[in-house]
Amino acid sequence: MMVFYNGKILDLENVAVSPFDRAFQFGDGVYEVVRYYPKIFFEYESHLDRLKCSLKKIEISFTAFENIESVLYELIQKNNLVDQLSIAYIQISRGNQFPRRHFYNENLDPSIFICVEKYPARVDEMKNGVRVGLEEDIRWMRCDIKTTSLLPNVLSKQRAIKNGLTEIIWHRNGLITEGTQTNVCFIKNSELITPPLSNLILPGITREIVLRLCKKLGFRYTERDIKLTELNHFDEMFLLSTTTEITPVIEFDGNIINDRVPGPICKLLQSEYQKLYIVLKKN
Amino acid sequence: MMVFYNGKILDLENVAVSPFDRAFQFGDGVYEVVRYYPKIFFEYESHLDRLKCSLKKIEISFTAFENIESVLYELIQKNNLVDQLSIAYIQISRGNQFPRRHFYNENLDPSIFICVEKYPARVDEMKNGVRVGLEEDIRWMRCDIKTTSLLPNVLSKQRAIKNGLTEIIWHRNGLITEGTQTNVCFIKNSELITPPLSNLILPGITREIVLRLCKKLGFRYTERDIKLTELNHFDEMFLLSTTTEITPVIEFDGNIINDRVPGPICKLLQSEYQKLYIVLKKN
Repeated sequence: MMVFYNGKILDLENVAVSPFDRAFQFGDGVYEVVRYYPKIFFEYESHLDRLKCSLKKIEISFTAFENIESVLYELIQKNNLVDQLSIAYIQISRGNQFPRRHFYNENLDPSIFICVEKYPARVDEMKNGVRVGLEEDIRWMRCDIKTTSLLPNVLSKQRAIKNGLTEIIWHRNGLITEGTQTNVCFIKNSELITPPLSNLILPGITREIVLRLCKKLGFRYTERDIKLTELNHFDEMFLLSTTTEITPVIEFDGNIINDRVPGPICKLLQSEYQKLYIVLKKN
Repeated sequence: MMVFYNGKILDLENVAVSPFDRAFQFGDGVYEVVRYYPKIFFEYESHLDRLKCSLKKIEISFTAFENIESVLYELIQKNNLVDQLSIAYIQISRGNQFPRRHFYNENLDPSIFICVEKYPARVDEMKNGVRVGLEEDIRWMRCDIKTTSLLPNVLSKQRAIKNGLTEIIWHRNGLITEGTQTNVCFIKNSELITPPLSNLILPGITREIVLRLCKKLGFRYTERDIKLTELNHFDEMFLLSTTTEITPVIEFDGNIINDRVPGPICKLLQSEYQKLYIVLKKN
């Protein structure tokens, strides 16, 4: 498997991350996952912008953005994934620092790691829907930054899987925030409702696209706080992310949604979303 | 520099951490820092116990504890630190997992990295005291686990250093919690006051020793909530950690403590603390 590490395309076996890399010792790094629909990286510019934003928020001074996109395509080619639905993972850490100290030297060279992976569409989940759980959101207060300090997400996700669920959705102070890897939307009376951007949720790219689609299709949508007490009043619910696209939820915290049938607005948005990358592929 | 990685003592240059190590991608690891006072590792058993506790709390199934202590002494020897005040850093991560997924395979082999470093006493800080800042505690709600998902600590510590301060002490919901790397104590009318153990602070080993010393010396001490509104009523304040031992604070959030003079109880506890490892060294 060929990957990219600090300027070189290498076999994974030959990548040697230092134990003094600050991502390894401090979770001091940021990342992006980008979808490859043969033969394009979808919304690459949006992911790049968010990556820049994350870096700026934690003051990592990485600047070599120009060749990332060409590296992505090169990795796809070298790993024989040109015709495969895939994802790319891009991680930038603050760099190596010795001796280990919490505070960082501002002159560190950030390190960058990129890999690609065959990642088929989750056809069954997208078609038939998923079951998700509900937990209290105990993460830090800067969930708008896509960092590698992901332990709370890991632990909640693990509980989901152990309980036969696909995802955990969190609530904080009685309000829905997001999932461990997804944003969340609800439908009530044909209106799409999703929590507003803040320090408490990741500014999801799929979320942004879906809101754009609503505007284009003339659907009503609102970005507003969603109370736990509202949960049993919704007609539809779905998850949004780069890898899961738009995935209907048929059971949430043990409550059945729409008789376990993915709703019509979800389905419509799914097909409109798919058109976006199908159109791109044709060009 | 010789370090230990997954069963072998190696030159640091020869350690190759995989980019799929979960500490690197998810901050999915735990750690300890142990003080070496020539020629003993101080309170090694307490650190080992806490390490086991951290592992258990996030369900990393590492079991090869038996030889860690001998590795510590071997590293001290191989790095010519036998007569030097030093520290050891021990990090255990959940292991390598490919492909990258938030949830983990329960059969992963955890990876362990250990290094030692010459680390002189901070004589000036311990004698003359330090200035510390105050910030809101925005970390997650499991600060009792010593994990490598440390980004919030990194960012606060960096602000401290930028502002010419030694440490940041946090408050949450109007109550003092702890520092980015330290526990905190106050003295009022000869009584030592420190926040109680909970999910909001690390169960510090130096904190535990200091409470034990209070008991032994017949000092009154209380583990209780400390309100922000009490802060200007204290006679002394000090920080506790493995590396800083007991360090007096002479300025906190711009307020001068005891005319910038380290207080008598701090000094007495410092000398009693030092006796603990001096006695051990003689045996």
